[in-house]
Amino acid sequence: MKNKAITAREVDFAKWYTDVVRAARLAAYSNVKGCIVIEPNGYAIWEQMQKVLDEKFKETGHQNICMPMLIPENLMKKEGELINGFAPEVAWVTMGGQKQLEERMCIRPTSETLFSDYYAGIVSSYRDLPKKYNQWCNILRWEKETRPFLRSREFLWQEGHTIHETAKEAEIETMKMLKIYEDFYKEYLAIPVITGRKTEKEKFAGAEYTYTVEALMYNGVSLQGGTSHYFGQKFSKAYDISFTNRNNEQEFVYQTSWGVATRMIGALIMVHSDENGLVLPPKIAPKQVVIVSIGDSDKVKNISNKILEELKGAGISAYIDNSEKSPGFKFAEAEVNGIPVRIEVGERDLAENKITFARRDTREKMTENIDINVADYVKSLLNNIQDNLYNKALQRRDELTYECIDIEEVKKIMDTKPGFIKAMWCGDEECELKMKEIKGTKSRCILENEKHIHDKCIVCGKPAKELVVWGIQY
Amino acid sequence: MKNKAITAREVDFAKWYTDVVRAARLAAYSNVKGCIVIEPNGYAIWEQMQKVLDEKFKETGHQNICMPMLIPENLMKKEGELINGFAPEVAWVTMGGQKQLEERMCIRPTSETLFSDYYAGIVSSYRDLPKKYNQWCNILRWEKETRPFLRSREFLWQEGHTIHETAKEAEIETMKMLKIYEDFYKEYLAIPVITGRKTEKEKFAGAEYTYTVEALMYNGVSLQGGTSHYFGQKFSKAYDISFTNRNNEQEFVYQTSWGVATRMIGALIMVHSDENGLVLPPKIAPKQVVIVSIGDSDKVKNISNKILEELKGAGISAYIDNSEKSPGFKFAEAEVNGIPVRIEVGERDLAENKITFARRDTREKMTENIDINVADYVKSLLNNIQDNLYNKALQRRDELTYECIDIEEVKKIMDTKPGFIKAMWCGDEECELKMKEIKGTKSRCILENEKHIHDKCIVCGKPAKELVVWGIQY
Repeated sequence: MKNKAITAREVDFAKWYTDVVRAARLAAYSNVKGCIVIEPNGYAIWEQMQKVLDEKFKETGHQNICMPMLIPENLMKKEGELINGFAPEVAWVTMGGQKQLEERMCIRPTSETLFSDYYAGIVSSYRDLPKKYNQWCNILRWEKETRPFLRSREFLWQEGHTIHETAKEAEIETMKMLKIYEDFYKEYLAIPVITGRKTEKEKFAGAEYTYTVEALMYNGVSLQGGTSHYFGQKFSKAYDISFTNRNNEQEFVYQTSWGVATRMIGALIMVHSDENGLVLPPKIAPKQVVIVSIGDSDKVKNISNKILEELKGAGISAYIDNSEKSPGFKFAEAEVNGIPVRIEVGERDLAENKITFARRDTREKMTENIDINVADYVKSLLNNIQDNLYNKALQRRDELTYECIDIEEVKKIMDTKPGFIKAMWCGDEECELKMKEIKGTKSRCILENEKHIHDKCIVCGKPAKELVVWGIQY
Repeated sequence: MKNKAITAREVDFAKWYTDVVRAARLAAYSNVKGCIVIEPNGYAIWEQMQKVLDEKFKETGHQNICMPMLIPENLMKKEGELINGFAPEVAWVTMGGQKQLEERMCIRPTSETLFSDYYAGIVSSYRDLPKKYNQWCNILRWEKETRPFLRSREFLWQEGHTIHETAKEAEIETMKMLKIYEDFYKEYLAIPVITGRKTEKEKFAGAEYTYTVEALMYNGVSLQGGTSHYFGQKFSKAYDISFTNRNNEQEFVYQTSWGVATRMIGALIMVHSDENGLVLPPKIAPKQVVIVSIGDSDKVKNISNKILEELKGAGISAYIDNSEKSPGFKFAEAEVNGIPVRIEVGERDLAENKITFARRDTREKMTENIDINVADYVKSLLNNIQDNLYNKALQRRDELTYECIDIEEVKKIMDTKPGFIKAMWCGDEECELKMKEIKGTKSRCILENEKHIHDKCIVCGKPAKELVVWGIQY
């Protein structure tokens, strides 16, 4: 019963991934090189993500705002590290209408510069602080190799940018937003993540430090799932965001930024989906239940409608597939689209007072008496699916997480069954570069609060400073 | 008690407008020429607009999608009228990273080309139709003169793009979406609009015809509030969006597009606001009620909290202004920000079992007994404000709508008290250009179902074909 449009995952993971994207109609390639069309099925997932996160941001005192998408070159250049980091991957607008521009502008690859410039104009006293703003917008980075959702020239994201009176307050903000991302991955996306600090080499251009949430995909490759940066006063000094503090002295603000992107849709696919298409955790699925009527007797229709009303009344997102397709086709379509629960209402079942439930994650079918409380049953089933997906992902992640003290082990693992490698590091960039020679293995993050597993750097053997998680990255 | 930061409306309307935008912190000028920062107060209004409209679009079977923001020049050029219409006002990306692009790309000034290109790839049979997609996105047009919200190089909007099996179905869609806009203006924005068809000269580049909603601002200037276009097969022929119809023949689809933008925020200001700042219709106000406690006794606090809970429980968006400002300052701030209702809870009133309500639209104050059902009282007050704003706007619009049969009258009106002019037209573009000489008066739309007021063209005196509404435009 395998979906023929989808390549076997074990045969060609990359092809399996794009097959799922296409078969579930999440995105299409466009005639704009490196850019995709996010199709209704994909965009509806993004809307669910936005809804949950936007609420969390607002609950924690953030407000939405909208900055221009263009950044004049001079404004972009004020903070040196940022422009150096992003220069190779921005797109430049050089003509407006029929005229050459006096100063070229780039399409935002990120908006620290615009927020900083704006903040400089609206802050003068500690009474104006903090400012905690966020924007949902599109971003452009001139990537060479692209892959739907995971790495696309244009993508959608949210970027929070906050400024604070004290370093401490800004640092608390950095960690608070990291926690929101971690919880969102765990509770909604059913994806366990490792959180930690990026090394100097891997941190965001211009940040004092960067925290990250790192997830492991089905094939053992790691994905940076979201980042939260502490800038200290780097941008506030470059853009002159100063204020009169409580001691009546001029001081520069302390700044953060944090973001997650449509890349999360890629993570959902690579963690949960299978060879029959998309599998969605119920808490993020735009449609949680599909009802398929088999036959068109009044009885079948009435019971289908009754179930629909009961589910809707219980706050479950459900619909009846009323299209003119055959039941078998509807089953397959609901499956490839990752609808968590399917309810089959058919004459034959009804004659025995039964209805059938099918769960997408395990593809099990359960036949139940028609007198059960359908809403309660489905609620419990949805919770069960959500938990099952998380536990499966966690088990796999744990199986693919290795503690190593010998670099030969790392090579062997990355050659055969890659995953997260926990290993000690001396702190030198040179050793990071050596690790990279092993199939591109990079430091994912520094685990600051975990017990060290050894006292020597896995690469050079010198005294180790940090316990680091390493992985091959998307 | 006039707000000193705001210029008198009668003295300088344009300055009054930008003063309100700045004083209510709806938008700020940015260092990106012609582009604004939409600040939290402004963006929250946009979010309210999105919420209402998005629900209406989904209820009528539309799905959201996301197209690339860049359009390669060749793709843009496939339909000749569109590129001719937009060429003078697009921004061109000519460099990606450090490299000159082989083909330059423009930032979307509208997305017919991208949707058409996409539709061509996904439609092959009548069974694939209709497709009814919409996107919420940013748009860039290289305008020379800009004004916050009304005309900005970058703005936010939604653009619906649909394709259909028959001309009739597409024409019904065009009118249905026009009606949604008309109702939205009336019911939510409390702005009466005139709807009608654009003349050939004023229609959208590439459309068979364009319908529009036209609103009249406080100063008698008209504003195009939203448009709904019928394309027939113009784009489907240029982009080869063909399908096998029910007779097993190849046919090109019939297409529509329709959009409204952040310009609606400008309309809200120019119709309802006054010299004390923003006035918002309750149905679109992000915050409908502010509670200001006067004094900080437990009694004052408890009653304020109790009222807040009651209002929230009734689905009213309310908050207590807990800032450290004086009550007078809080009153002024709520006023300039356009919060429809203010509730004052103070010791002195409470001693007499009273609380005070102030409505933003008329600035009236009402003192009521504390035992009233506050939620019911406020609900009725909000409805009353909504109706009052609409009725005031309608009355003004009617006062400023003139029927003319003599062009000298038009000149006199436009010189003294401009507004909508209803006048007959022969159908020749030459006469439209003559009208334009009167302070830039343009045809707003053709009234197809209204009784003709005369039999001769107001400009040339030849037999008239159409009754047209004319106005000076933003």
